[in-house]
Amino acid sequence: MTHSSGNHGLAVAYAAAALGVPAVVVVPDDAAEVKVAAAARYGARIVTVQPTLAARIAGAQELTDRHGYTLIPPFDHRDVIAGQGTVGLEIAATCPEVDLVLVPVSGGGLISGIAAAVCAACPGAKVIGVEPELAADARESLRRGERVAWPPSATGRTIADALRVEQIGELPLRHILGLVYDIITVTEDQIREAIRLTATRARLVAEPGGVVAVAAWLFRDDLPPARAPVAVLSGGNIDPALLAECLRAPAGPVPRPGAAIQEGPRTVSG
Amino acid sequence: MTHSSGNHGLAVAYAAAALGVPAVVVVPDDAAEVKVAAAARYGARIVTVQPTLAARIAGAQELTDRHGYTLIPPFDHRDVIAGQGTVGLEIAATCPEVDLVLVPVSGGGLISGIAAAVCAACPGAKVIGVEPELAADARESLRRGERVAWPPSATGRTIADALRVEQIGELPLRHILGLVYDIITVTEDQIREAIRLTATRARLVAEPGGVVAVAAWLFRDDLPPARAPVAVLSGGNIDPALLAECLRAPAGPVPRPGAAIQEGPRTVSG
Repeated sequence: MTHSSGNHGLAVAYAAAALGVPAVVVVPDDAAEVKVAAAARYGARIVTVQPTLAARIAGAQELTDRHGYTLIPPFDHRDVIAGQGTVGLEIAATCPEVDLVLVPVSGGGLISGIAAAVCAACPGAKVIGVEPELAADARESLRRGERVAWPPSATGRTIADALRVEQIGELPLRHILGLVYDIITVTEDQIREAIRLTATRARLVAEPGGVVAVAAWLFRDDLPPARAPVAVLSGGNIDPALLAECLRAPAGPVPRPGAAIQEGPRTVSG
Repeated sequence: MTHSSGNHGLAVAYAAAALGVPAVVVVPDDAAEVKVAAAARYGARIVTVQPTLAARIAGAQELTDRHGYTLIPPFDHRDVIAGQGTVGLEIAATCPEVDLVLVPVSGGGLISGIAAAVCAACPGAKVIGVEPELAADARESLRRGERVAWPPSATGRTIADALRVEQIGELPLRHILGLVYDIITVTEDQIREAIRLTATRARLVAEPGGVVAVAAWLFRDDLPPARAPVAVLSGGNIDPALLAECLRAPAGPVPRPGAAIQEGPRTVSG
């Protein structure tokens, strides 16, 4: 049992299928259809609720209590954060000289794990979170030093469906306050153009919420200087029609000088 | 100096830029615009000729003679074949139990190198070439035991711009006759659907000529049985409008049972 805007639910569905156990995923009714369909393809039962974190949590808890399920929270749990920290270990192993890591932020689990791993393995590296301008609750939480919630009517406006969670978790707040250098934002136009450039230059399909760190690298001209930057690209579950729309759009904002996506040899782990 | 339908010219342009030497690329006038533009972005001078292999070879030879350039042939040369053979070495290293390798065929250099490497390292493996049904000159050459040319008016019909070369080279013919198990074909609909499935399931952008081996794996129901198959995905330089068209198309031919693209963890080298 889990609740998720989509990707975590898909991961739980995949793992459950691999282990031969049933899965139930509570999703908000504005979840990306491709994610819900993929979770269902792996055999998960889908339960749809209102698009608020409270409704997701209540729906998952009620079914867990009623049926005795095991709840796997999407971000506010040590084990989930530790699992996501393996991305940070991979960064440190692949690029030990890393000095800047850009990471998408939604509930904050991914950046918590990455920051814990990278700050331990590469003490000089700065970890910076990236959010859509339209869902900048984590940025505001970092500024204020406490969890701030943005209403779904605000966060629901971004195309980054994976980043609409209204507030970060308690454990992520502590990781972010202790380890994260800053949280910055990108615009919807920058997200769309980053999707186009990632597809045409890196030949990788990225979803809006997955590409925000790449968008920050391409378009933010106020990043700290970096000799070995890493942008985490963390999701590729995009509605094919939206990807087509981004590909057909006239060229968008222009990347800052020197920030183009390299077309040379590279290795990708996924 | 080279001549190319696009990807080899782009590779030469990239290498020349890395080495700081000038590059000239002779391309057919039906080359994919994204490839020509990318080669030009790396500083190569582009010379356009009629879309025949003879015109490409004559154009490149004339400029080479006149200016004293060094000609780097696209496929009919031992060094180029040996370089492409590193893909075969990588397959053997990554998947030593490989028993079936599917490879796109145009001039035949890629499959020659891969077959030489795979047949040496993994003697039980079958290497099979894949062509568009509309440009099946290599298949016919294998059947007849000699190089057969298809006219550009025939091969020009496929969307797989990288595979329109009218005939394989002399050295590739010898490799194919000696090492390749078979050459098979895929339809245009299968190519388009393979592009869509590769983007939405593997999250990789593939061009038509690069995806034919994946298309064969998905749609050909007469492949030899294989426990550890590998399909080589060899190009991602696709016109964004064509990719958008494939993404928006209604679902195409249905993959044969058991041939779906896995969505689980994977590693990609490019």
